[in-house]
Amino acid sequence: MPRFALQIEYHGAPFAGWQRQADQPSVQGAIEAALARLEPGAHTIAAAGRTDAGVHATGQVAHCDLEKDWDPFRLSEALNYHVKPAPVAIRACVRVADDWHARFSAMERRYLFRLLMRRAPATHDAGLVWQVPHDLDLDLVRQGAEHLVGHHDFTTFRSVICQAKSPVKTLDEIRVERVEGFSGPELRFHLRARSFLHNQVRSIVGTLERVGAGAWTPERVREALEAKNRAACGPVCPPQGLYLVGVGYPDAPFGG
Amino acid sequence: MPRFALQIEYHGAPFAGWQRQADQPSVQGAIEAALARLEPGAHTIAAAGRTDAGVHATGQVAHCDLEKDWDPFRLSEALNYHVKPAPVAIRACVRVADDWHARFSAMERRYLFRLLMRRAPATHDAGLVWQVPHDLDLDLVRQGAEHLVGHHDFTTFRSVICQAKSPVKTLDEIRVERVEGFSGPELRFHLRARSFLHNQVRSIVGTLERVGAGAWTPERVREALEAKNRAACGPVCPPQGLYLVGVGYPDAPFGG
Repeated sequence: MPRFALQIEYHGAPFAGWQRQADQPSVQGAIEAALARLEPGAHTIAAAGRTDAGVHATGQVAHCDLEKDWDPFRLSEALNYHVKPAPVAIRACVRVADDWHARFSAMERRYLFRLLMRRAPATHDAGLVWQVPHDLDLDLVRQGAEHLVGHHDFTTFRSVICQAKSPVKTLDEIRVERVEGFSGPELRFHLRARSFLHNQVRSIVGTLERVGAGAWTPERVREALEAKNRAACGPVCPPQGLYLVGVGYPDAPFGG
Repeated sequence: MPRFALQIEYHGAPFAGWQRQADQPSVQGAIEAALARLEPGAHTIAAAGRTDAGVHATGQVAHCDLEKDWDPFRLSEALNYHVKPAPVAIRACVRVADDWHARFSAMERRYLFRLLMRRAPATHDAGLVWQVPHDLDLDLVRQGAEHLVGHHDFTTFRSVICQAKSPVKTLDEIRVERVEGFSGPELRFHLRARSFLHNQVRSIVGTLERVGAGAWTPERVREALEAKNRAACGPVCPPQGLYLVGVGYPDAPFGG
């Protein structure tokens, strides 16, 4: 059976998360249902990152096996047609080797977190950012973030229900920039690692928000990390500012 | 009664437009209902631009008269609280003179139109842009737009139900830029005039899209304008890419 890699965008709001569930809408379920309209029967797709409820993607990657040797562009068009009205879009589709795996072949995940700083409630960006009513100090946020880059035990920054075997991960990058977004000033956090722990990004951003607000010193981030204790973490921030923006593979199937 | 000017943002999707209607949700109705929570009784507010169903605003301006001499910041906070869950936000509030009028004192209206050029259906920007599946030629769009700047009879570019006394208007600016938006490449149209005719912006953008797609020559825009005939207009584009972004007043009550 020919295998296809899909680059997928979705709005997280209506979904209980990526993963298929018996009684709740999921992104995986929506795409598998669309595949069943093309080739009847059960489909199971595997994704690079199993995003939580409310988390968005612009560059999720999954693979599927089909009977027919579809033209990749026609396959993406057909899926976009059948997945409607769910807010899911196939942005690219390529034929890959039979042993290519969206999750196990992945070498890198990239996340973006959007944090909007303004007082009046956002209307156009509601559900697309985490909004705080105060300004944050970018320099302090960056100082706090520096303590987290590198190879560390991230026990403090992972959910207690995280199923990863080890809390030790290498965080390759946290880049924080201030941009004038459509609805006002945003801090945008760009995080990059081979893999992430459950709730790691939201634990980090929630903690760094406290630093930017002046409630935590940057140094306290290092102390929290070294504590290796979930109780030392700052507040975990909500999911709607988080986007899985890209997944890296040795063969870069989608180019770039 | 003290008079207050409000700078207002809203998402156009759930509304039948700005103007209060007996049996449909409107932005005006939502704000007037919030005002009635602060001071019981009927309220009537006047706005600079009566936007159509589905049209957004980031800088609509309206004024209201209240019994109490509210602190403007507290008034904006109270309105933002009571207007929930409608996607409306008061971005600024100032005390103005008793004869200041959001509509009649306005010297200039500024609109933005966002046109997203990509094939896969937008998920995060659905309802916030007009999406076309093909790329447009920015130079051609600009050449077409140049014919419309200045003092003209815009009969071709106004709705047949437009109630303005004269179709002659001065369009001070159409600036078109290509930006890398969150969901892909966008053309952003910035239009500025003392006042606009009904459907004027959407008639202009819909026509210029045809130029950018190569279906119309730029020269045909001039011919359409000179025809002074609604039938000569290109297709009117949908409302969800249109934003009222600002209103100019002699006293610049909101600064800037």
